[in-house]
Amino acid sequence: MILVSWSAHREKTQDVIALAEQQGVPVKTCSPEELDKMSKGGTHAGLIALASNRPLTKPEELLTLVKKSKVSPFLLLLEGVEDEQNLGFILRTAGAIGVDAVLLKKHIWNFDQLAVSRASAGVYEWMPLVKVERESDILPELKKSGLKVFGAMPRVRRTMYDIDFTGPVVMALGGEKRGLSGALRELCSGFFTIPMPLNPDKHANPKEVPSLSLSHSTAIVLAEVMRQRR
Amino acid sequence: MILVSWSAHREKTQDVIALAEQQGVPVKTCSPEELDKMSKGGTHAGLIALASNRPLTKPEELLTLVKKSKVSPFLLLLEGVEDEQNLGFILRTAGAIGVDAVLLKKHIWNFDQLAVSRASAGVYEWMPLVKVERESDILPELKKSGLKVFGAMPRVRRTMYDIDFTGPVVMALGGEKRGLSGALRELCSGFFTIPMPLNPDKHANPKEVPSLSLSHSTAIVLAEVMRQRR
Repeated sequence: MILVSWSAHREKTQDVIALAEQQGVPVKTCSPEELDKMSKGGTHAGLIALASNRPLTKPEELLTLVKKSKVSPFLLLLEGVEDEQNLGFILRTAGAIGVDAVLLKKHIWNFDQLAVSRASAGVYEWMPLVKVERESDILPELKKSGLKVFGAMPRVRRTMYDIDFTGPVVMALGGEKRGLSGALRELCSGFFTIPMPLNPDKHANPKEVPSLSLSHSTAIVLAEVMRQRR
Repeated sequence: MILVSWSAHREKTQDVIALAEQQGVPVKTCSPEELDKMSKGGTHAGLIALASNRPLTKPEELLTLVKKSKVSPFLLLLEGVEDEQNLGFILRTAGAIGVDAVLLKKHIWNFDQLAVSRASAGVYEWMPLVKVERESDILPELKKSGLKVFGAMPRVRRTMYDIDFTGPVVMALGGEKRGLSGALRELCSGFFTIPMPLNPDKHANPKEVPSLSLSHSTAIVLAEVMRQRR
């Protein structure tokens, strides 16, 4: 439904209203004060669209998507990302790089969808998103369909440059503090690390080397898959 | 100078106070209300350290740093990044990947240093940072010292995978809206793009492909330099 303030400039809202009528979306007129109260972002230009919660992709739909994919499927699994802005940033990068779907394992599922959508620059609205309750419900099925699950881990011997990501893959990354859980690591086909830093001489004590944030690590890992597949 | 609230628990503050005395840093006792007023982050645990503005690296110091570098110098030039959080994110990545110094061309220089430092996970405190007033003051000197300046640009023919970044380089990136200015482009030795997306079939209309944020583009570009130099 679209709400329009009776004080909005008609020449500014007419295109939206025409499109809404054409698409069968109800339009309601209300007071500017009502809109002010509903607008979380502060400004609304006299017009607000009410959207229902974005539907999640079911595990069986993901399997169908994977099976009918013409190129090697490329999935991203995130564990323990509770911050809305970080989740949004990662979705934006995943959308730009060309990930097929994002699997999400969160402790708390009542996150602020508006904050995620904003940080994602809109990718949240269309990227297939699969809720992972228990990884053992979905990962074995994906592996049966030919996907390999690679987990990012600090200080493992193999770097992301040593692994072939050109086949069907699930790239799994965990939150900055805890990393990947034991349950998830059990289901991984292999592990890799992002080699850091470029200039090891600069930091005599390896503990002093600053770490990458999760969203930036993810960008680097997804870009490496992209590079290998060119 | 370190300010300690008279209501702070002594067993929690004693180590800091002992270290401050050892290092000759003045310690002053004040009221908890005074600390509350000064603490921008809200909480202070009864203790606040006052730090002076972080000193910038002068262009001549940068040239010395570049000349005495044993490995190929690796500099990052940012133009038009006005958002403190983004600047902090980029510094964190630059620190983690091993950039030698960051050159910064901003329109407005009175930014909130605390916000930058927080988002940078502390990298802001030690990364050499050079203020660029006019690129023509510093880039020609760096080029004379053997560095090549590569500019990130959308839709140029060469990708970052086609260019050799193993020699001394300045990687130049501009803000998301305006990109690199004409003045800076004039001084670039070459241009590259991040090829996107991986799955061009997914977006029939190239305008629909979501873009990477500046901090995530930068992470991907810096990681490519790292990959080539391994």
